Amino acid sequence: MFQDSSFSAWPAALKVSGLGALRVGLVGTGVVGSGTCQLLARNADLIAQRVGRPIRLVMAAARDLHKAAQVVGPDVDLVSDPLALVRHPDIDVVVEVMGGVTLAKTLVLEAIAQGKHVVTANKALLAEHGSEIFAAAQTQGVIVAYEGAVAVSIPIIKALREGLAANRIYEVVGIVNGTTNFILTHMQETGMGFDAALRQATALGFAEADPSFDIEGVDAAHKTALLAAIAFGADVPFAQVHAQGITRVEAWDMVCAQALGYRIKLLGVARQRSESIEVRVHPALVPEKHLLAQVQGSMNGIWVNADAAGPTFHYGAGAGSLTTASAVVADLMDVARLASAGLSARVPYRSVQASAIQSWPLLPIGQVASRHYLRFALHERPELLTCLPGWLQSAGVEVQQWAHVRHPENVRQDALVVLTQSLTGDDLANRLKALPQMQGFAAPAAVWRVEDLNSSAM
Amino acid sequence: MFQDSSFSAWPAALKVSGLGALRVGLVGTGVVGSGTCQLLARNADLIAQRVGRPIRLVMAAARDLHKAAQVVGPDVDLVSDPLALVRHPDIDVVVEVMGGVTLAKTLVLEAIAQGKHVVTANKALLAEHGSEIFAAAQTQGVIVAYEGAVAVSIPIIKALREGLAANRIYEVVGIVNGTTNFILTHMQETGMGFDAALRQATALGFAEADPSFDIEGVDAAHKTALLAAIAFGADVPFAQVHAQGITRVEAWDMVCAQALGYRIKLLGVARQRSESIEVRVHPALVPEKHLLAQVQGSMNGIWVNADAAGPTFHYGAGAGSLTTASAVVADLMDVARLASAGLSARVPYRSVQASAIQSWPLLPIGQVASRHYLRFALHERPELLTCLPGWLQSAGVEVQQWAHVRHPENVRQDALVVLTQSLTGDDLANRLKALPQMQGFAAPAAVWRVEDLNSSAM
Repeated sequence: MFQDSSFSAWPAALKVSGLGALRVGLVGTGVVGSGTCQLLARNADLIAQRVGRPIRLVMAAARDLHKAAQVVGPDVDLVSDPLALVRHPDIDVVVEVMGGVTLAKTLVLEAIAQGKHVVTANKALLAEHGSEIFAAAQTQGVIVAYEGAVAVSIPIIKALREGLAANRIYEVVGIVNGTTNFILTHMQETGMGFDAALRQATALGFAEADPSFDIEGVDAAHKTALLAAIAFGADVPFAQVHAQGITRVEAWDMVCAQALGYRIKLLGVARQRSESIEVRVHPALVPEKHLLAQVQGSMNGIWVNADAAGPTFHYGAGAGSLTTASAVVADLMDVARLASAGLSARVPYRSVQASAIQSWPLLPIGQVASRHYLRFALHERPELLTCLPGWLQSAGVEVQQWAHVRHPENVRQDALVVLTQSLTGDDLANRLKALPQMQGFAAPAAVWRVEDLNSSAM
Repeated sequence: MFQDSSFSAWPAALKVSGLGALRVGLVGTGVVGSGTCQLLARNADLIAQRVGRPIRLVMAAARDLHKAAQVVGPDVDLVSDPLALVRHPDIDVVVEVMGGVTLAKTLVLEAIAQGKHVVTANKALLAEHGSEIFAAAQTQGVIVAYEGAVAVSIPIIKALREGLAANRIYEVVGIVNGTTNFILTHMQETGMGFDAALRQATALGFAEADPSFDIEGVDAAHKTALLAAIAFGADVPFAQVHAQGITRVEAWDMVCAQALGYRIKLLGVARQRSESIEVRVHPALVPEKHLLAQVQGSMNGIWVNADAAGPTFHYGAGAGSLTTASAVVADLMDVARLASAGLSARVPYRSVQASAIQSWPLLPIGQVASRHYLRFALHERPELLTCLPGWLQSAGVEVQQWAHVRHPENVRQDALVVLTQSLTGDDLANRLKALPQMQGFAAPAAVWRVEDLNSSAM
């Protein structure tokens, strides 16, 4: 079964490397696993023409062997014990697309210990245990490739680690979760509330049965932590990454933001500062003409700012069976090329050599400065319209832009919205605290950050 | 001079490869050459941390040695004879950023013959002589890297050859010339004519003294030919690539196109068909909501459609000193990693192994089908407004969309604009020929293609 019986069928010209097929073991035969099988089979000729050797799926591990047999086809050995797969001597590379953290970690570490290369699309695993996994891989001299962990159809990890490798990366700002972007787009387009939009997303297959990782921003935080680690060559302790999801975003704030020329998006922000880094996920206002604001539905988009290349933008699908397989198989092709080359030929896991990894402190979210959007309800307090700007000013909160937005149906929603100067969250909170002493004042009904991107190039 | 005197200063941990510095010889110390020097110096630490070995500029060739000395600094040997540089035994890799074709070709082939790797940003050279150069490089087993030849700040060659390597690429549609995109954007925003906008571009440094390669579409055609070769693993005979520039685009057509929901952009289109490929450059209407239509000023943007990843979009600066250096130095970093690895570890020049390169016929432009935009002048022929749709219909030209556009100042410009069904250029011309027999008919004042991109994902 593990003999290269089919290899003799490849044209001699393809055997440039003198190597046989790369032998792949697949752990997980769900959505991503089945896409990987399908793509490896469908584009087998092209893949071999590009790599110079075939890539062959030889074994798969799955809980339901009967179902898995349908996915992998007749020529692949099936096992129910994934440990047997990662330990099998005839496997060169393990593809881990089972998801989850605990078992996946055990399997990946065991595969590495066995000297096997690993391709994974598991962002949770790498965001939470990347340091340990990369250290083990470094010791064993094996590749751990993970393009499928972030914005799958966009080769963003390759762009950051290789394409932009000559640059100091200043910032990476991305829409990296398709589920939440679908929900926000739907709210924007229909005026529907969050709960209804989530139900719609679930019905259409854009949200999972348990959507909490997506809507609470955890998935986006995993991806943003990985992008930060690569962009800055840093060890990013995931527990310190600020993650706020979209459950508190109101459709009415989208209308009010639009009146100021902005859209609300769930952003993952990774930014290098002089002595620290920002790694945070939260809803934020983005200028509506910015390319990030044009990312609609379940698509992903990533804005990168670097010292030599300037701003670049990278857009594509963020999830899906064949889309994720596009990244997983590209990683396998890199492994097929580089497996036999020395360590020095390989791209470091997190963009810099292990010895150069930095441990920048993460700036606490309250100490991150940005402009802020404040929405004040005008109902029963019409005098706010005239008093508020002065009050805010007296508390040290500048009104850089404002709008009086009337609700088309519900006068109780009428709002005064303002954009402040750049302030840290803590600073803004402290200044607003001074205000309640003013008669008639009520705290803002909504506060969101504005993400002022370097848009000089737009 | 060529001893690695500075290498001992690098931390021991960076010597993972056991290799010394990669020794670079630079041919050309103009805009790109000086950016390359600057970036190599400025980010030297970071580059070494990422690659695992330093990259050192050791020699440069330039016509004006005095001027060049200012650019390269005191530690670099200067020669006036570039052949002496490419033949020097202490150079590992030659960076060719002098431009032009004849001398550059001689130098690049000589460098290859000497067993040296080559990094070049010369799209004309590779579009016109790529086959010969890549064949020589294959024989000698050296790398020829050329990320700086197309859309410099966007790692699009890496995205196509590696990131999307598991995909069949259906189409690559790009705005790949910043000068013409700046001119078109300026015409769009100001209503200014082509000549005035060109003067403005020249005054602001966005057009060269002799802008003909840019405005005639030749530069975009070079880049599109390279992208096609990579996307389809094909040998693309440059002489057969259709190139039409922007000199005949009128600002008034931009207004009329906008009335139909489109913008006019200079597009490079590479599309795979069943038995042939399209490789063509010409102005075309793009739906105004499409990301390509959002590419403004001198920026570049490239839309890629692939079988597994689906649509992706890649955006960034297309020219400039440090921006091009970003690509050139990234290529040097790849060379530094892969120079000592075997041939099998390298990415093929045009995405597939040399033995698998295809020679698809290029579809002649007249046989390329698309929808077309026709502008008819209404002045002195108001009856066209009622007659034309019927006439066109009778000749087999469907009116899928139309608008009556009144010029704000000049009634003589009032126009009837229509979008036809998809027809080849030859077919449309033949059908329109049937019309002049109709009394009062005049040929359209402008005809442009509509590029209907797969925008289902937008």
